[in-house]
Amino acid sequence: MSYSALTHHFEQQHHLQHLGAICGWDQATMMPSGGNQARAEAMSALAVLSHQQLQDPKLADWFASANQASLASDQKVSLAEMHRQWRDATMLPSDLVGALSLAGSRCEHAWRSLRPANDWAGFLPLFAEVLNLSRQVAAARADVLGLSRYDSLLEQFEPGMRSATLDSVFNGVKQWLPALIKEVQDKQGSEIVLQPQGPFAIEQQRALGLDVMALLGFDFNHGRLDVSVHPFCGGVSEDVRLTTRYDEHDVAQALMGVIHETGHARYEQGLPAQWRKLPVGQARSMGVHESQSLFFEMQLARHPAFIAQLSPLLERHFGTQPAFAPDNLAKLYTRVKPGFIRVDADEVTYPAHIMLRYEIERDLIEGKLEAKDLPERWDQLMQRYLGLSTQGNYKDGCMQDIHWTDGSFGYFPSYTLGAMYAAQQASAMQQQQGSLEQLIEQQLPSIFDWLQHNIWQHASLLDTDTLIEQACGQPLNESAFKQHLQQRYLG
Amino acid sequence: MSYSALTHHFEQQHHLQHLGAICGWDQATMMPSGGNQARAEAMSALAVLSHQQLQDPKLADWFASANQASLASDQKVSLAEMHRQWRDATMLPSDLVGALSLAGSRCEHAWRSLRPANDWAGFLPLFAEVLNLSRQVAAARADVLGLSRYDSLLEQFEPGMRSATLDSVFNGVKQWLPALIKEVQDKQGSEIVLQPQGPFAIEQQRALGLDVMALLGFDFNHGRLDVSVHPFCGGVSEDVRLTTRYDEHDVAQALMGVIHETGHARYEQGLPAQWRKLPVGQARSMGVHESQSLFFEMQLARHPAFIAQLSPLLERHFGTQPAFAPDNLAKLYTRVKPGFIRVDADEVTYPAHIMLRYEIERDLIEGKLEAKDLPERWDQLMQRYLGLSTQGNYKDGCMQDIHWTDGSFGYFPSYTLGAMYAAQQASAMQQQQGSLEQLIEQQLPSIFDWLQHNIWQHASLLDTDTLIEQACGQPLNESAFKQHLQQRYLG
Ligand SMILES: [Zn+2]
Ligand SMILES: [Zn+2]
Repeated sequence: MSYSALTHHFEQQHHLQHLGAICGWDQATMMPSGGNQARAEAMSALAVLSHQQLQDPKLADWFASANQASLASDQKVSLAEMHRQWRDATMLPSDLVGALSLAGSRCEHAWRSLRPANDWAGFLPLFAEVLNLSRQVAAARADVLGLSRYDSLLEQFEPGMRSATLDSVFNGVKQWLPALIKEVQDKQGSEIVLQPQGPFAIEQQRALGLDVMALLGFDFNHGRLDVSVHPFCGGVSEDVRLTTRYDEHDVAQALMGVIHETGHARYEQGLPAQWRKLPVGQARSMGVHESQSLFFEMQLARHPAFIAQLSPLLERHFGTQPAFAPDNLAKLYTRVKPGFIRVDADEVTYPAHIMLRYEIERDLIEGKLEAKDLPERWDQLMQRYLGLSTQGNYKDGCMQDIHWTDGSFGYFPSYTLGAMYAAQQASAMQQQQGSLEQLIEQQLPSIFDWLQHNIWQHASLLDTDTLIEQACGQPLNESAFKQHLQQRYLG
Repeated sequence: MSYSALTHHFEQQHHLQHLGAICGWDQATMMPSGGNQARAEAMSALAVLSHQQLQDPKLADWFASANQASLASDQKVSLAEMHRQWRDATMLPSDLVGALSLAGSRCEHAWRSLRPANDWAGFLPLFAEVLNLSRQVAAARADVLGLSRYDSLLEQFEPGMRSATLDSVFNGVKQWLPALIKEVQDKQGSEIVLQPQGPFAIEQQRALGLDVMALLGFDFNHGRLDVSVHPFCGGVSEDVRLTTRYDEHDVAQALMGVIHETGHARYEQGLPAQWRKLPVGQARSMGVHESQSLFFEMQLARHPAFIAQLSPLLERHFGTQPAFAPDNLAKLYTRVKPGFIRVDADEVTYPAHIMLRYEIERDLIEGKLEAKDLPERWDQLMQRYLGLSTQGNYKDGCMQDIHWTDGSFGYFPSYTLGAMYAAQQASAMQQQQGSLEQLIEQQLPSIFDWLQHNIWQHASLLDTDTLIEQACGQPLNESAFKQHLQQRYLG
């Protein structure tokens, strides 16, 4: 009775979120700029309404009584996931939520011009206020959840993940990553790599993207591809809206971007139909989501066997040129070079960017590092992990990412968790079904079937540890990722 | 205090309607078909929520107390419009609303296959049920509003309009229309008219449409043009979403369609900014809305001086051909021929289609005509007004329109009210500012300025009678429309 009432309530929430997701997609892809003010107000009204509905005092009673009810095991999990969403939405005083939202949008807005101006002094007070309020949020969440402050934020994006686990995994990575980067660079130093010669017409890039999405099994009856400044995968499971951006001089950016987002999209399209309107039917975590996009973009799309299929597609749309030869594309798509910018980083150096951010944000939230000391710590860690100095270079250093400007502390680890989960999945898949090379060449769909069976269909019905152990035979660890990098880059 | 509370409440409603309008547009233009089920559920949840919010018992108290408050005159009008919306949403028992909605969608859905099959017998029971429930709605509304049953439905689309007024205006039209149609046909019988030779590439038709929208002052910073099966003008005032459909063999259809919808769109874009989130800031009525689209499509776009500007645009996009000569286009766009189908009718015969539907739907609702007798009455009136028989031809007769299938009785008069208001506006504009010919040739924007000043900026701040009298110097009447037709078609 109260379980059905809760289910109905959260389904109604889902319908509103559906409208918000489509309007958010529209805002990024279709809306003329003059519509922005009215849209922002409408979206904000929806967020307020959604939050109000979660605050409904009836819910506390329903949860209390549903917890006593006799429920099937999947209903119990569904109840727990509804409770988690409700708890997250109601555990904070609303004036704190409002203050962080305000400070966050102020800081983010200013960041858009302060970053290109390399203006750390202008950024610092705004950032310090976001940090201050984020620490209060962390403290309040930590009290309720019985977690450390940083873990209480991590819990928002990676339910069940703790910094103790991250420390142990990242400490492992630190043992071998710097040496590996150096070895790979030494090996690649003598390689000759041809750059594809553009321009590459945008209409043709789009056609190529659609071909690759079809190859990857994207269901065009339940989704579409469009353009936005910041690519994303949005919409709803039944209607996944994927975006990319095109650069006439660089065909790889949109191509790899589309492949990445198609990984996110297939996870969404593969979520189980009967749970789609409820929290338990949503993707498990940011890290698991990223494991799917990185499986597609890194494990699959940069595999020589897959590149052998990309090569003729490139030639079909842009004609033949030496740079499109599979061997050359394989070298091109696996170049390793330490750089300042996370979003431009290759597969090998990427984890260094994440470990640096993880250590810094953990210390910022736990009160062991102050906002003013951020640039110095950033420079130290960049030197240590990637051998680069960012002294005085704030815009390519600690001011490069949007995440901290609006208080999204605890998000960064998801990227590298995704890379590790993806490597574990690829390894398990190969043990069970044969080499990726064979699968790609002979039965590409069986790869997606494995992911559907082991990841997508479970939505949030399993916790992350169980999901990964059940799929891969092992809990989270860095060894499959290490093996993958060694084999691909030094093998 | 209670006035502000109401204002806030209706602004929140408006924000939700904004999201619904954009998602409705998306559903018709962008959404892959597999997304339809989930979207329909989300839209329906929004409608229920919106309706629930209007049912909030606080509102009755707020209205009672706001009616006692001392308010500025525009606030009083705003209050009255909020009250009208609230009254419309709350005066009916919700089981009746639900029953009509269900019967309506069942009938409409079946109609989509029964109409092409010419299956009146299959349609009749479904239609009879919709009529039965619509009569109950009319009776309930009539009780509350102190109106006749049909007038109580008319009031939904044309606040203040009564069938007594319609009778008097339509009786006037009946005096001269049949003879006029005959005269025009006699005159046009000897004309030689060239048909443009296609095909007309869709990309070029779209470019032509955008050119014409720009010529008509459409603000592309607050709107856009897309494709849908059934063209419409949607979105919100700040972001107007206009659609059309293209036929490779007929350039006029999309061209005139875009011009028509641009008339709707400029009304929306011209609504006063400070009232946009409230009922009083919305378009006055369906008839006034249609007066703007018909002003653009009929008064303006079929005027020889405007056709002289369309001709070079057609040539720019499709090359020169004899049919694009202004004289030929003018003849082509003003051909008159009685036909079965309302949506294909020309400007002269269109009112006959409307008067027929008005008389029938009024008698259906007032209980003077039964569903089973509809085809016979239809045939009688088609013979009387247009000299055509629809005996046994249901699909091109009484089954041709969607309106009655979902219970939208009372809507049809808006089309011809729009044509009359448009003619009155054109006449008044010419008396005040010089001939349309001069205005089109020398100062097209002054035409839009007149409409902005006299119609758009008033939104629902004036009742329709006051709006029209203030703009045109006269209340609704058929003489300007008659003069317009005589001058254009016989002059
Ligand atoms: Zn991603
Ligand atoms: Zn219209």
